[in-house]
Amino acid sequence: MEYLENIRNLRGRCVLRRDIIREFLAELLGTFVLILFGCGSVAQTVLSREAKGQLLTIHFGFTLGVMLAIYMAGGVSGGHVNPAVSLAMVVLRKLPLKKFPVYVLAQFLGAFFGSCAVYCLYYDAFTEFANGELAVTGPNATAGIFASYPREGLSLLNGFIDQVIGAGALVLCILAVVDKKNIGAPKGMEPLLVGLSILAIGVSMALNCGYPINPARDLGPRLFTAIAGWGLTVFSMSLDLWGKTEHPEET
Amino acid sequence: MEYLENIRNLRGRCVLRRDIIREFLAELLGTFVLILFGCGSVAQTVLSREAKGQLLTIHFGFTLGVMLAIYMAGGVSGGHVNPAVSLAMVVLRKLPLKKFPVYVLAQFLGAFFGSCAVYCLYYDAFTEFANGELAVTGPNATAGIFASYPREGLSLLNGFIDQVIGAGALVLCILAVVDKKNIGAPKGMEPLLVGLSILAIGVSMALNCGYPINPARDLGPRLFTAIAGWGLTVFSMSLDLWGKTEHPEET
Amino acid sequence: MEYLENIRNLRGRCVLRRDIIREFLAELLGTFVLILFGCGSVAQTVLSREAKGQLLTIHFGFTLGVMLAIYMAGGVSGGHVNPAVSLAMVVLRKLPLKKFPVYVLAQFLGAFFGSCAVYCLYYDAFTEFANGELAVTGPNATAGIFASYPREGLSLLNGFIDQVIGAGALVLCILAVVDKKNIGAPKGMEPLLVGLSILAIGVSMALNCGYPINPARDLGPRLFTAIAGWGLTVFSMSLDLWGKTEHPEET
Amino acid sequence: MEYLENIRNLRGRCVLRRDIIREFLAELLGTFVLILFGCGSVAQTVLSREAKGQLLTIHFGFTLGVMLAIYMAGGVSGGHVNPAVSLAMVVLRKLPLKKFPVYVLAQFLGAFFGSCAVYCLYYDAFTEFANGELAVTGPNATAGIFASYPREGLSLLNGFIDQVIGAGALVLCILAVVDKKNIGAPKGMEPLLVGLSILAIGVSMALNCGYPINPARDLGPRLFTAIAGWGLTVFSMSLDLWGKTEHPEET
Repeated sequence: MEYLENIRNLRGRCVLRRDIIREFLAELLGTFVLILFGCGSVAQTVLSREAKGQLLTIHFGFTLGVMLAIYMAGGVSGGHVNPAVSLAMVVLRKLPLKKFPVYVLAQFLGAFFGSCAVYCLYYDAFTEFANGELAVTGPNATAGIFASYPREGLSLLNGFIDQVIGAGALVLCILAVVDKKNIGAPKGMEPLLVGLSILAIGVSMALNCGYPINPARDLGPRLFTAIAGWGLTVFSMSLDLWGKTEHPEET
Repeated sequence: MEYLENIRNLRGRCVLRRDIIREFLAELLGTFVLILFGCGSVAQTVLSREAKGQLLTIHFGFTLGVMLAIYMAGGVSGGHVNPAVSLAMVVLRKLPLKKFPVYVLAQFLGAFFGSCAVYCLYYDAFTEFANGELAVTGPNATAGIFASYPREGLSLLNGFIDQVIGAGALVLCILAVVDKKNIGAPKGMEPLLVGLSILAIGVSMALNCGYPINPARDLGPRLFTAIAGWGLTVFSMSLDLWGKTEHPEET
Repeated sequence: MEYLENIRNLRGRCVLRRDIIREFLAELLGTFVLILFGCGSVAQTVLSREAKGQLLTIHFGFTLGVMLAIYMAGGVSGGHVNPAVSLAMVVLRKLPLKKFPVYVLAQFLGAFFGSCAVYCLYYDAFTEFANGELAVTGPNATAGIFASYPREGLSLLNGFIDQVIGAGALVLCILAVVDKKNIGAPKGMEPLLVGLSILAIGVSMALNCGYPINPARDLGPRLFTAIAGWGLTVFSMSLDLWGKTEHPEET
Repeated sequence: MEYLENIRNLRGRCVLRRDIIREFLAELLGTFVLILFGCGSVAQTVLSREAKGQLLTIHFGFTLGVMLAIYMAGGVSGGHVNPAVSLAMVVLRKLPLKKFPVYVLAQFLGAFFGSCAVYCLYYDAFTEFANGELAVTGPNATAGIFASYPREGLSLLNGFIDQVIGAGALVLCILAVVDKKNIGAPKGMEPLLVGLSILAIGVSMALNCGYPINPARDLGPRLFTAIAGWGLTVFSMSLDLWGKTEHPEET
């Protein structure tokens, strides 16, 4: 009996040691799936010139992408799939600070590989669309499939407020939905309701920049576009979450 | 042991004393979130001239806004986020009468601050739209983002019937969904189903006035528009729930 | 103690005696709500000439109407709100045959009163629309708000097959969703899933006649339109579930 | 007592013996229902030239078709309704290999009969549409109602990648949703969430071939169209899952 107990303990310790790797892989897979469905739905809409997609299918793509990402990663890593959420969990002491960079790296890599997968999935369509030109702006722009670009005329201040409100609303919604002391979603329905929170943000806060409330979701695919042929304009064109680039109006 | 019991009792009494403050804040936060998502979705649709929003995204905005508001406030105050619902709860003796004005004030303030947040979120877009003119009527009207205005040609009597049927249907749906002696929603799913009741009302009863079945949701943002630059026309133009203003046709 | 037991028994017997009245009222209320939301969403779409409604909002109206009807009536009468469902329950011995006419009458009356409520709700809009003409056919037709009319060119045989497939699919879906020996919906979610079954039928089987798979939902409002001013054409124009009327092509 | 036990055992053994027949029938019914709602929604959209259906109603048709199919078949056979899912279950040792051909045959037959039912349902509409011509390509093409055809210009390699990513994503989503060691859907909600996975794939991966991630769903109806009058072109035109046919561009 004691022997069995020992085995179990040993096994437990090994599992603990391998936890961080499992969490890394879970976040990577989750963000991969989020981008695959989310950016995939934008690609389907843009590349078909809205024949096979529309505003709502894109909203559904991100809603269900987040939902399925959490179903996949949730049991292992919590399914943050978003550095902003991981940061909130660090602040709330639900995630040890030392795990934070691991989570963010996993999310960034997952988003990068996810955008590779979308590009592979629609390689022929990208080649055909606008004779293969990979444009960042104009009527044939396809860079917006992967990363968010601010609306023309948006000031830096308003863009900053936009991101504060958006990310704050997201964290607030997630905390409310999973709060068992409050109403709280039934066990196993949290991913659906977090997904619906994304939908709520998408229908109400997407006008300025297209809700890039997820730095990994934005930066990973943006780096991919820079490498894959859209060029470094994808960085200079953009008032992204890091707020370090120049204003698009002035470009 | 007795000591611990005493501590717990003391703590319990303090909690009781602070209950009304917590309920005030819960209702305020809930209504804030409802307006942020609900009016935010109208703003996104109107300010983009339907390029980034449409009829359905507005319906989803209010549906999910109510749902998330209840997830946030439900465990503390019940998540009424609507004076009509609070009134129904008073009548059904589920809310003490003396708490009623506190709830209504919180809802009104939450809606007011929520419309401030939407205005901040889209400050640049409001400035650009129609060269910054803040119109109550006409093709560039933006007052409708915040408050409901009756359809032209609606008589006072029909507007009154519209509000009675709308508010009655809402209360009936809420009571049915949370009634555990009846089928009742599973624990934790009530907010989603109350949200879907709002959707049901939105798709079937919005033609006359745009379902302003929530006096706080309507009056708070309306006051905000009056202050923020749309002027007092927002009151005189409107056959609102209070039914005290003149008929829009006659204005 | 025995006294209390007696009281409880007595009360139980009284409740039993009053059961049939409560079931009558539950079915009436349920069907009323179904029509209020369902036909209300058609009215909103038709009377605004698709400005405030569209194909999907009508689907959502019936989906949510059925869902909310079942939440209201389900705990008392089972929430059939449809003679075809009541008939299936009789055949499956889940409803005593002698209650069947009571259920059907309640459903018919509920649908009739529901269409009155929709007419009151949009009285002004009906008066304005096409200068108050209440047309059964043509571009200004409004009879279709209340009852289903077959597509031009539909043969009687195809209409019959359409109804058999539609009603069969509905009963099959309901039985599957509530079957606890199978997967079965979680307790309290059945109404949502029955509503989604209606949506499934609406998106796939509505081309021929607009899914009038509910005789009460169709006949009650149709009678209302005959009385309210559309005239007896509403009967002669229609290949309804009873299949006794002449073919619309030949009219 | 022992007698009763014996009866129960005997009954148990009989049930076991009849299991494979019940599973066959369950898969057949499930796939039938999937095609009835899924292809039905495409038929409604195509035959009404998008007046009674649109992109989203088709997505909902397949989403709800899969959901209802699993509610019907899930308790008996697991509700695979897809040879790719059955194959994954064999690989994961959740389905004995010897049952695999039985499942696939049932799925194929269910899909075949399902497309018969859709054809019967809309027989008149098929006859009317384009004067009864049953076209595989061109503006009056109706073969696409039943089976998937690749977009023009899609290379064989990209089509293959498309199918690998699509089927992989589907299996991954299903495994995540039903995994009780992970978050996992609540008991009884799995069918809804598998349906939403189909929606996620539909909005993000349908551009190339229209997500024919289900060989039975594609091949059964395709065979039906070949027999019912569209001719053998339905096979030669198509880069289907089997990848054995020539490229549509070259036809």
